[in-house]
Amino acid sequence: MKGCMLRNVVSIDDLTNEEIESLFRLADEFLEKMSVPGHPHRLTGRNDLAQGRILATIFAEPSTRTRLSFESAMLRLGGQVISSADANTSSAAKGESIADAVRVVENYADLIVIRHSFEGAARAAADYTSIPVINAGDGSHEHPTQTLCDLYTLRIARKTKSGEIQTDALRDLNVVLRGDLHDGRTAHSLAFALARFGSQILPDPAPGCDFPEHVRRRLARDYGCFPLISSDVDNLPQGAFPADVVYVTPEEPHQLALLPDVDNVWVRLSKRQQKSIRGMKHVDAFYATRLQLERIPPEHRDQMRKQYGSIDAKFLNEKKYRHSRVLHPLPRTDELSYELDRDERGVYFQQAAYGVPVRMALIAALLELQPGLLSPVEAPGKYAEYQHPQGIHCGNKRCVTRQKTEMHYLVPKFWIVDNQPLTTRCIYCDFEIEPKIVAQASTRRFTDATSTWREIDLNDMVIFDDETSAVSAGYQRNQVMLSQKP
Amino acid sequence: MKGCMLRNVVSIDDLTNEEIESLFRLADEFLEKMSVPGHPHRLTGRNDLAQGRILATIFAEPSTRTRLSFESAMLRLGGQVISSADANTSSAAKGESIADAVRVVENYADLIVIRHSFEGAARAAADYTSIPVINAGDGSHEHPTQTLCDLYTLRIARKTKSGEIQTDALRDLNVVLRGDLHDGRTAHSLAFALARFGSQILPDPAPGCDFPEHVRRRLARDYGCFPLISSDVDNLPQGAFPADVVYVTPEEPHQLALLPDVDNVWVRLSKRQQKSIRGMKHVDAFYATRLQLERIPPEHRDQMRKQYGSIDAKFLNEKKYRHSRVLHPLPRTDELSYELDRDERGVYFQQAAYGVPVRMALIAALLELQPGLLSPVEAPGKYAEYQHPQGIHCGNKRCVTRQKTEMHYLVPKFWIVDNQPLTTRCIYCDFEIEPKIVAQASTRRFTDATSTWREIDLNDMVIFDDETSAVSAGYQRNQVMLSQKP
Amino acid sequence: MKGCMLRNVVSIDDLTNEEIESLFRLADEFLEKMSVPGHPHRLTGRNDLAQGRILATIFAEPSTRTRLSFESAMLRLGGQVISSADANTSSAAKGESIADAVRVVENYADLIVIRHSFEGAARAAADYTSIPVINAGDGSHEHPTQTLCDLYTLRIARKTKSGEIQTDALRDLNVVLRGDLHDGRTAHSLAFALARFGSQILPDPAPGCDFPEHVRRRLARDYGCFPLISSDVDNLPQGAFPADVVYVTPEEPHQLALLPDVDNVWVRLSKRQQKSIRGMKHVDAFYATRLQLERIPPEHRDQMRKQYGSIDAKFLNEKKYRHSRVLHPLPRTDELSYELDRDERGVYFQQAAYGVPVRMALIAALLELQPGLLSPVEAPGKYAEYQHPQGIHCGNKRCVTRQKTEMHYLVPKFWIVDNQPLTTRCIYCDFEIEPKIVAQASTRRFTDATSTWREIDLNDMVIFDDETSAVSAGYQRNQVMLSQKP
Repeated sequence: MKGCMLRNVVSIDDLTNEEIESLFRLADEFLEKMSVPGHPHRLTGRNDLAQGRILATIFAEPSTRTRLSFESAMLRLGGQVISSADANTSSAAKGESIADAVRVVENYADLIVIRHSFEGAARAAADYTSIPVINAGDGSHEHPTQTLCDLYTLRIARKTKSGEIQTDALRDLNVVLRGDLHDGRTAHSLAFALARFGSQILPDPAPGCDFPEHVRRRLARDYGCFPLISSDVDNLPQGAFPADVVYVTPEEPHQLALLPDVDNVWVRLSKRQQKSIRGMKHVDAFYATRLQLERIPPEHRDQMRKQYGSIDAKFLNEKKYRHSRVLHPLPRTDELSYELDRDERGVYFQQAAYGVPVRMALIAALLELQPGLLSPVEAPGKYAEYQHPQGIHCGNKRCVTRQKTEMHYLVPKFWIVDNQPLTTRCIYCDFEIEPKIVAQASTRRFTDATSTWREIDLNDMVIFDDETSAVSAGYQRNQVMLSQKP
Repeated sequence: MKGCMLRNVVSIDDLTNEEIESLFRLADEFLEKMSVPGHPHRLTGRNDLAQGRILATIFAEPSTRTRLSFESAMLRLGGQVISSADANTSSAAKGESIADAVRVVENYADLIVIRHSFEGAARAAADYTSIPVINAGDGSHEHPTQTLCDLYTLRIARKTKSGEIQTDALRDLNVVLRGDLHDGRTAHSLAFALARFGSQILPDPAPGCDFPEHVRRRLARDYGCFPLISSDVDNLPQGAFPADVVYVTPEEPHQLALLPDVDNVWVRLSKRQQKSIRGMKHVDAFYATRLQLERIPPEHRDQMRKQYGSIDAKFLNEKKYRHSRVLHPLPRTDELSYELDRDERGVYFQQAAYGVPVRMALIAALLELQPGLLSPVEAPGKYAEYQHPQGIHCGNKRCVTRQKTEMHYLVPKFWIVDNQPLTTRCIYCDFEIEPKIVAQASTRRFTDATSTWREIDLNDMVIFDDETSAVSAGYQRNQVMLSQKP
Repeated sequence: MKGCMLRNVVSIDDLTNEEIESLFRLADEFLEKMSVPGHPHRLTGRNDLAQGRILATIFAEPSTRTRLSFESAMLRLGGQVISSADANTSSAAKGESIADAVRVVENYADLIVIRHSFEGAARAAADYTSIPVINAGDGSHEHPTQTLCDLYTLRIARKTKSGEIQTDALRDLNVVLRGDLHDGRTAHSLAFALARFGSQILPDPAPGCDFPEHVRRRLARDYGCFPLISSDVDNLPQGAFPADVVYVTPEEPHQLALLPDVDNVWVRLSKRQQKSIRGMKHVDAFYATRLQLERIPPEHRDQMRKQYGSIDAKFLNEKKYRHSRVLHPLPRTDELSYELDRDERGVYFQQAAYGVPVRMALIAALLELQPGLLSPVEAPGKYAEYQHPQGIHCGNKRCVTRQKTEMHYLVPKFWIVDNQPLTTRCIYCDFEIEPKIVAQASTRRFTDATSTWREIDLNDMVIFDDETSAVSAGYQRNQVMLSQKP
């Protein structure tokens, strides 16, 4: 339904690596031309790129920081802003759906920035409006502009002394992700982005806060990024390999299977990568996150908080951290000591500052204020898309497709991301399930998902969670091969 | 107290038909010059008409949609906006009156847009400030800019194929008003406006949701608009007259009495009107509204909701709706199916879009950014005005004159809208009462309102609800004719 | 940490008298060039001084009036605004500290205006950001821009008929401060400012609402301003001296002791002042304030409200008020009758209007949009500064240094404002305490604060509330003189 530019940024995966690079180069330009003397990471003044354009922020969840950052970016571009900052004052209180809300607001603005508690809400918004949509956080799901700021900060950290940014600045970085890797959406998104750019991920989770299985599977399946432990590495020199496990993406995938269980990652690495991993003695960046207390059952909170640990000057005394940049998406609570505010390794406030030029670049790109930054259409998805009014629903209770105000118009959509076992991923919230039954709509027959279902035409296919669901929908177990049309 | 331009838009009746037409022509111009390619109802860019001007929105009740629409309109005119969007953060929480609030804010802005829960609040605001005030909704009372958008949408629907708007585009339309006609202020205001412009109103209320008596009386008294049922119509051809009742305004009123009980409306219609009504086989527009649940006692809500009915594609399959435009003030709940979103008859999102050019035109007119759109002073009221510190108060508990923070400075004011029985209408909230006693202040005598009270001079008159009130105020029943000064 | 301009306005004492005068002259210019015809106190239009600059308002407490006034001022200067208007939608809800909040927001804006419930919050904000901070109210503590508006209104009231502002317009005014002088921060700040400029303060408190001791002490200590009663005055002519007590600041302090107990103020007055006080028959200005109900225990509220009294036309009939300007910081409740709205002595709405040009001048000064308005660095404090991680804390529970989110990074700081008894004033919230013990860090010995502690070097000094605290911190009572290093 979009106008000329058909792009949204709902997920970091909506941008290719090349597009991210071109946005970053534009952000560099803004910093070069508009920064405050003595504060190279902070902007002042404005240009006229977005004159006459209006950005609408629809924030159904509180977030002063992100909202103000977008508003500042739009004003620095010479545009204007209209804001709906509070769920309680919005039409949502009268039961309005996301689709209706955006189809009204698209008439008041040129671009929508949305934050919502429903996971997948931004995708739903983008599906129903013809102006560009930027996701500013949808529940625990995605927050792509935070990831852009994180990447931009890592990239700036690679500046040479003469101020040049290295080509491939985001490749081969050793990045510790620390803290709540279980529920922190910023850590997940950053991990995916690091895998895409070919950097190594060194998880340092708090007790009970390691990457969940779905993140590990997605790292493997979508980005070809696999865990490596020290015993995997041939002839590892002493002192190298400063982590229990390193996630690494082989440069040459050698036809990696889609399955996450890859026998030997080490041998699939290029010589360059092997050398780099062997020599890994320091950490380029240290990404701290706060405990997502609001997602932890109240009875466990005290315990979790105690075990969470805090990063202070002493902690960073270790040699491997000597040149580490310390990042944090903020706000922090206790996990990052105020001592580090005066340590030049602590770049988390710069990281917040970069939000303005990076978001300026993104707005300029989506409004086509500068040509050639983004391809006019999104790259196609790499998985087959499945949608049918009958059959499976998303298994995530917080998914936008399962909310009372949205379910009467949104038909669930899925990517078929795996065959053995059959695995579907919700296109809205990315939640994966493994349905047990596949049916053929034309014959109303079903079979086990482990069976030869791949021969069914996608347009004639219906997927069910289990046999009971299929039977109650009026389907019968097939006697003949499904591919043999009766 | 106003400066040079002495105008406000508190009620749709604050604008003459000619003024509404001139606003609409300016809105047409904005659409012509500033619309998005491919989206003729939506604007982008800005002009410089309101450069340096500030619009203040004071929203003591939530309404993202209306507020953002005004803000977008002001920004598209090159002006700026300051907003107070939440009752809880306003000075009202400290007990400040509306009069004080606007007398402060008038120093920060050039124009005030106010939404408030007190009925009549916008009139009170306008009485106390010297900058123009626009009512963006005062309780269940008025929301004139919504009505302007509704009318503009109906008018656009009359465009010819060559894009010309017909003269008298708002005359002789057959408009179904459907749903909650009892509590929906947008349906009331639209009905009054349709009557004024000479269009027919076809009510299609949900069970228990018909027009209240006071709306019917006002249609008759203020606009000369009366109900007609099929048996009223001579020689009605079969299939014509697609409604139980049609409200129609005779073009030539033939000295219609002020009373709502008019014996035979049919004979008062012009030949043209009679012909038009006989031939009425289709509906030009269908105006759906949501159930005003918040105004219904909780115990009745489920029942009301069940009976309310929903408009879907099937419903509109009837021949008489073939070319009907479907409007809705939004937000919708269940009364309008999402199926219609893809039906070209559904124009409710365009209707929302027109809010911007229409509000731009209104702002431009009130700030005199374009000359000649509005007469510099309001047209005089057509009823006699009555005000006295003693005697009657407004009978509406939600009226601004009865609120704790307002009653110590606002003296109730009334129009005397009828003689037999004596009927007064609150100038703030339009609520009507029928007081029983009329007194003469100079003689301190009173008599029944049915009596010869019309001979009392308006400046010497005091009206009381009943005898008890008059007596406790120190008045005596008169022995002689009141007109005979003692 | 500031950039080139190192200034904030956290307290009215952050500006010298000369700086205030220069701000007022710039405000005069704005009024002259930009006022609405027929409304000389109100602005319209905009200039381009602040083009490309962004002002951020961070309002963690509700205040529509003050926020809109700042926003209007910034827009009239051609700048832009980003706003966080509600505590509930801010990062504070996630436990973020003030220091972190401002270090993020400083990247989005050129200037921060903060309102917060913690007393001293604005000082904390200013300490942690490198862009200018304006205090828009921190609990019951300070609200310096309100005081600027009050002073500006008093100054305008001294205009001659030809429109000239008198030199020394703020000297020798007789100003009645009426109402809640106990908890009203605006009354306190204005009293301090009047003392500084050499005007007389005539307190007219409601029962139980007189100046608290700390205000009286500060008037004396900081500004040399002392109470004078009629019996102090030699040969007082009848009818003069229209108040129970007058606070007056001798022009030539004759080496006034620091102590508030001054034997004979009268003889310390200059001849000019003595003549002026003798001839004092009228009141120049009458400053009414509302009862700060929210700071009074609920059980006393009704009683206090009854006794509070209201100013109406009758009240102001007294001859001494004939030419008095009536000011009020607004919002009012019952203490000021609506009758006065039409009385030309009532200038409280003009006072609100002046908020815009005055705040424009302040913003222009802090952003250095006009050179020479402010000295680039703050004047040094007149008291010695004391800070030590051990020892005393601020005694005010509402002080920012005692709040859970702030205490882990803010180290309390104090001015030593008196010696006999030792008195410290919190640099954040101005709360004063009289600690009993002084210790020497190098020797870990302590002594009574009444003793010879002044010989201890300030950098080696630790102050304790009492002996118990000193002992539990590991200090011992000294046997020898502290100055005799062991």
